[in-house]
Amino acid sequence: MTTMNRRIVLASRPTTAAAEDNFRLETVPLGAPGPGQVLIRHHYLSLDPYMRGRMSERKSYAAPQPLNEVMIGGTAGEVVASQHPGFAVGDKVVSMGGWQEYSIADGAPGPLAPRKVDTRAVPLSAYLGVVGMPGVTAWYGLNVICEPKSGETVAVSAATGAVGSVVGQLAKAKGCRVVGIAGGREKCDYAVKELGFDACIDYKAAPDARALGSLLAAATPNGIDGYFENVGGTVLDAVLVRMNAFGRIAVCGMIAGYDGEPLPLAYPALILTSRLKVQGFIVSEHPKIWPQALAELGAGVASRTLKYRETVANGIASAPGAFLGLLKGRNFGKQIVKLLD
Amino acid sequence: MTTMNRRIVLASRPTTAAAEDNFRLETVPLGAPGPGQVLIRHHYLSLDPYMRGRMSERKSYAAPQPLNEVMIGGTAGEVVASQHPGFAVGDKVVSMGGWQEYSIADGAPGPLAPRKVDTRAVPLSAYLGVVGMPGVTAWYGLNVICEPKSGETVAVSAATGAVGSVVGQLAKAKGCRVVGIAGGREKCDYAVKELGFDACIDYKAAPDARALGSLLAAATPNGIDGYFENVGGTVLDAVLVRMNAFGRIAVCGMIAGYDGEPLPLAYPALILTSRLKVQGFIVSEHPKIWPQALAELGAGVASRTLKYRETVANGIASAPGAFLGLLKGRNFGKQIVKLLD
Repeated sequence: MTTMNRRIVLASRPTTAAAEDNFRLETVPLGAPGPGQVLIRHHYLSLDPYMRGRMSERKSYAAPQPLNEVMIGGTAGEVVASQHPGFAVGDKVVSMGGWQEYSIADGAPGPLAPRKVDTRAVPLSAYLGVVGMPGVTAWYGLNVICEPKSGETVAVSAATGAVGSVVGQLAKAKGCRVVGIAGGREKCDYAVKELGFDACIDYKAAPDARALGSLLAAATPNGIDGYFENVGGTVLDAVLVRMNAFGRIAVCGMIAGYDGEPLPLAYPALILTSRLKVQGFIVSEHPKIWPQALAELGAGVASRTLKYRETVANGIASAPGAFLGLLKGRNFGKQIVKLLD
Repeated sequence: MTTMNRRIVLASRPTTAAAEDNFRLETVPLGAPGPGQVLIRHHYLSLDPYMRGRMSERKSYAAPQPLNEVMIGGTAGEVVASQHPGFAVGDKVVSMGGWQEYSIADGAPGPLAPRKVDTRAVPLSAYLGVVGMPGVTAWYGLNVICEPKSGETVAVSAATGAVGSVVGQLAKAKGCRVVGIAGGREKCDYAVKELGFDACIDYKAAPDARALGSLLAAATPNGIDGYFENVGGTVLDAVLVRMNAFGRIAVCGMIAGYDGEPLPLAYPALILTSRLKVQGFIVSEHPKIWPQALAELGAGVASRTLKYRETVANGIASAPGAFLGLLKGRNFGKQIVKLLD
């Protein structure tokens, strides 16, 4: 009996908001690994905001996701067949397996090769979040671009997300005042009570940009020195006004504009008057820092000093809906899809 | 007979565009230098865009210019009386003497003390421009923020101004393709034929942002790696679209918004997708680089490899009108006021 592989492909490109019918579930026969390859059964898929950018053909930092091919994405799973001497059946690995139940990968070392992970002290799924790309994203943007010093104020949007929650905890560990911005009372309570943020602003409680600015001003009495941007739009406008001289802004995401709506910045002159540095980055382009970042993040999880939360969808068919929810902020912490019990 | 000093004070703050009646010419008796002080007769006043910011009370990087006090500004002149051992009558000096014919300054060393200059190979007025604050501004923004490498493309707005003309020439000397943006055919011709720019775009010939973008695209076939921003507004929008991955933008001025009009940035998400660094700066906050920058710029003028042009208004009473013309781009090169033949 041929083993079947279920997968989600990109069926069409969204013209405004992404929707379920942009995706299609397919069931196809599973191939066998050739020489030098491994067959991986995925336990978890990672869902991340960057995937929305790949769905469009607009100019971006990466090539668009091809139509009718498996959606790109990080995966965590187990080697179930190996024709590469570096991998044995039973090895736990993370790789870019895509939205599907199985993948076949080249075992040769390289940036896209599967990476063996140790699940004794760190759960497998954490390698898709806090000890994976989102965690390293937080580590890079905070340490390399925001460069926070003890006593400074650091703000982060999407504060309870896979990236934002790590940004805030790392900044707290550096002795900063940390202010989150998140959607909803529950997320804000979590940021303060569980993650240890000093304050968290519920942007949904602010009826307009002016109200958001007032909330932010109250939470940042000494202004903001470092800002980690995940959303853009009116949140960025409000933060810019609060930035102190020589402040640093790491631009990691602008999810507010992912559907193509205009997202102007109201007061760019503040970059000059406050002598700010505003810098965009893509963590995959900075491979040199990954080993150090992953080691620190893994140690934090193992020692339970670095906390994280996951929203888990079940089964490959749930991936599109879970992804659309992520874009609307319906997840709480890292959004993953569990494929296997 | 008491010597009289004529001076321009700020009479009122502009609510929209600055106008002549924001200024008032006064004639007051000249005091005498006290112990440790020097009396300087100004030969030239410097007029610079930053002064517009000081006229308003809006949040900016510097305290506003007080009402009914002498307009702030750089001056070049000659010591005519000295009670400080470091200065002798006849010394040529640059200082922050303001919009007036004479000033009394403290001779003690410090950031605001008069600085003796050598006028054997560099004309006195050049110390207000190419070998002064504007030249150092160009040097810092280009070398420290834009960090151009040979073969890259550097663009600069207000390309024939006191700052822009130096930016372009320094970038050419580093082996870059240099593209200016200026207002009018005459300025563009000067940038290419006299300053050695590879191309210069006349933004006045572009009826809208789209047309400006087309002109810019034609002049930057390999995109833009470093951009030195003096104006903001639609020019910045057009440049952002042309920026290459990992491009650097030095934000020196946003003269388009000096009168308080909104100046939104249309596509801030490009900072992320192109992984740009956008950094504002104020050259007076970086005193360490001044000696090296001034030495290099002075050597360039002395050897005639660094070219510059001045627009000269005559007499203290002409300063307000010349300043308003500067804000409208009516000057050509460095705008100065000559007080003494």
